[in-house]
Amino acid sequence: MEELVQQLATPGGKMVLLVLDGLGGLPHPETGKTELETARTPNLDALARKGSLGLHDPVAPGITPGSGPGHLGLFGYDPVKHLVGRGVLSALGVGLELGPQDVAARINFASMKDGVIVDRRAGRIPSEEGARLVEKLSQIRLPGVEIELKAEMQHRAVVVFRGEGLSPHVTDSDPQETGVPARRVEPTSSEPEAARMAEVANQFIAEVNRVLADEWPANTVLLRGFDRMPNLPSFQERYGVNPAVIAVYPMYRGLARLVGMTVLDAGQEISDEFDRLEAAWNDFDFFFVHVKPTDSAGEDGDFDRKVQVIEEVDAQIPRLLKLEPAAILVTGDHSTPALFRAHSWHPVPFLIASQWSRWENDCEGFGERACSRGQLGRVRAVDLMPLLLAHAGRLKKFGA
Amino acid sequence: MEELVQQLATPGGKMVLLVLDGLGGLPHPETGKTELETARTPNLDALARKGSLGLHDPVAPGITPGSGPGHLGLFGYDPVKHLVGRGVLSALGVGLELGPQDVAARINFASMKDGVIVDRRAGRIPSEEGARLVEKLSQIRLPGVEIELKAEMQHRAVVVFRGEGLSPHVTDSDPQETGVPARRVEPTSSEPEAARMAEVANQFIAEVNRVLADEWPANTVLLRGFDRMPNLPSFQERYGVNPAVIAVYPMYRGLARLVGMTVLDAGQEISDEFDRLEAAWNDFDFFFVHVKPTDSAGEDGDFDRKVQVIEEVDAQIPRLLKLEPAAILVTGDHSTPALFRAHSWHPVPFLIASQWSRWENDCEGFGERACSRGQLGRVRAVDLMPLLLAHAGRLKKFGA
Repeated sequence: MEELVQQLATPGGKMVLLVLDGLGGLPHPETGKTELETARTPNLDALARKGSLGLHDPVAPGITPGSGPGHLGLFGYDPVKHLVGRGVLSALGVGLELGPQDVAARINFASMKDGVIVDRRAGRIPSEEGARLVEKLSQIRLPGVEIELKAEMQHRAVVVFRGEGLSPHVTDSDPQETGVPARRVEPTSSEPEAARMAEVANQFIAEVNRVLADEWPANTVLLRGFDRMPNLPSFQERYGVNPAVIAVYPMYRGLARLVGMTVLDAGQEISDEFDRLEAAWNDFDFFFVHVKPTDSAGEDGDFDRKVQVIEEVDAQIPRLLKLEPAAILVTGDHSTPALFRAHSWHPVPFLIASQWSRWENDCEGFGERACSRGQLGRVRAVDLMPLLLAHAGRLKKFGA
Repeated sequence: MEELVQQLATPGGKMVLLVLDGLGGLPHPETGKTELETARTPNLDALARKGSLGLHDPVAPGITPGSGPGHLGLFGYDPVKHLVGRGVLSALGVGLELGPQDVAARINFASMKDGVIVDRRAGRIPSEEGARLVEKLSQIRLPGVEIELKAEMQHRAVVVFRGEGLSPHVTDSDPQETGVPARRVEPTSSEPEAARMAEVANQFIAEVNRVLADEWPANTVLLRGFDRMPNLPSFQERYGVNPAVIAVYPMYRGLARLVGMTVLDAGQEISDEFDRLEAAWNDFDFFFVHVKPTDSAGEDGDFDRKVQVIEEVDAQIPRLLKLEPAAILVTGDHSTPALFRAHSWHPVPFLIASQWSRWENDCEGFGERACSRGQLGRVRAVDLMPLLLAHAGRLKKFGA
């Protein structure tokens, strides 16, 4: 299917993919309504009635995706075939260049007491504190390997190992639970490069523990998601479009760079992102606009805040419509129900609006139930880009 | 996808798969309501409103499955890739051990007059009569082959051929219609073992005809579904669960044994099956409860009886809920509409209920129409186990 879509791609109208991260929800026990159904969204509701609705499975029914698979699916890349490690996503997000032999891993600053991990996020230290610690760690030297570190937000950072004879085939040191020691990094393949990589990673962690010995709460690091740069065909190749990303959080910019999107400055607020969209409108024909706080509110279990973020996005919709895109797709990369406090497998509502939509005249608005009865039905996330391209007049007829 | 689910499986809550065989129906001409929509099912309706609904295709749209593919799909095994012959299902169902070289075939006692089959089921003779005839046939000896026979219910029995140089690649002798002679068993591959198997089977049938010459109505046998034991990964391997089956009919126990389920004594009545479920609740974390009479009523064209059976199951639902399973899946392995009097291709209603369900607050209850508007949409049967596992907290997140 990916090849077929590539063959059929043809020039056409401008498209906007507006992703409210973790959009899908679960009903509030008192009202029986999800976050999206609870939110007052007059603009999205009107768009739904002149657009078409459906539900998508980011990977497959029952599968809960991480942010990587969730977005690759939305971009039209089979997320099972194209798995990208967290280390690579983080490195791209902070703007680190990755050579083909480099191996990146995600760092969490963590708290260790008597050799046991007591907080996997070091109390979510402020970003400035994370930057200071990364600076301190940059003194670490290991023989035969170049190490580059960069802070992300809060307790998060990324490390890139550069040198001959490394491999991404090693385990995480993150034990994924507290009350136990960090794990040793172990090779997962028999190649000598994997053994070498594990040795380098364990040496690095030992050095970190020495350098941070007097710090608290961040006195150690947990490494996970070792990986190399994948070799994905670009949006330009796949769809013949000139794409840009507007995303406040680094990882989503990183994901977009993987498929060749130009990174635009997104500012900090949701309204900033739409400012940027207006400013750049003439320069690109595909815009991926990413809104993070829906997911953060869901992960925090804050139903009301997730509702508010959705309403905040709704208020920007008239600005988007004023630009007259040929086709708009509004959806999430997965569900993060506030009641579940985590990413989940629940299918994600989506809305496609264009001149060529089959209207949902009689729908109650944009919400999970309306989408479950929507005219675009139940699809996989990878089906959405072809649908969006089609609605923008960008896919030729297949066959005679 | 099967591999991905296996990788993501993790310990979690208890699950119940409640299968009403042949559940899906067609509307009664007078009321416009299917069997399930006609049945008074207050408990299933309440469960639907706090659960989620959908329709599944056992194999694919338009495909009518036998019991084997129907159940393998529900168990999460691609039914096209993993085809299991009826002979193997029957042998497993009656507790016959099958070695890797053994070939099993399903027997129907039948009525033959002037060399022509006049009843493919010998008037559905009682089970005791079937057992007597099997006993009589156990005198048959053929050179170089060991033959084991066992009666199933009514006119059904199974034969296992043991010996060197046999093959499952032969045709059925069952002509699937009356008024014609039984067919000769023919090889379907060019290997010498297939020719040998066909010869053995035809010799066996000739011997049966000699031994039963003075019997009526069961004076011959029809053989079908020659096959060997398949090599399926177990539920334990695939999902990390300890599964049990509660099924009155042998074949369904056989299907469950194929994927490593422990067979529990099911008694005879639907209420007996729920007695057993309660008694065994602490010993397993997955229960497959199979209810046969919905299918039998459908095959007999008895709309009202099918309605009654569904109501009988509904009355047991409070007992099931009292056990507090983490996730419940109620569905059929295929449709057997009473008006169609046979298995059919119509999509099958399903209901998943767990703490993490998106409620169907506004649905009219558990029925085909409600399920067609359900929030779990239209899926393939193989997608149901991942969904059930997810709802029971048994699938980890995929990717970072």
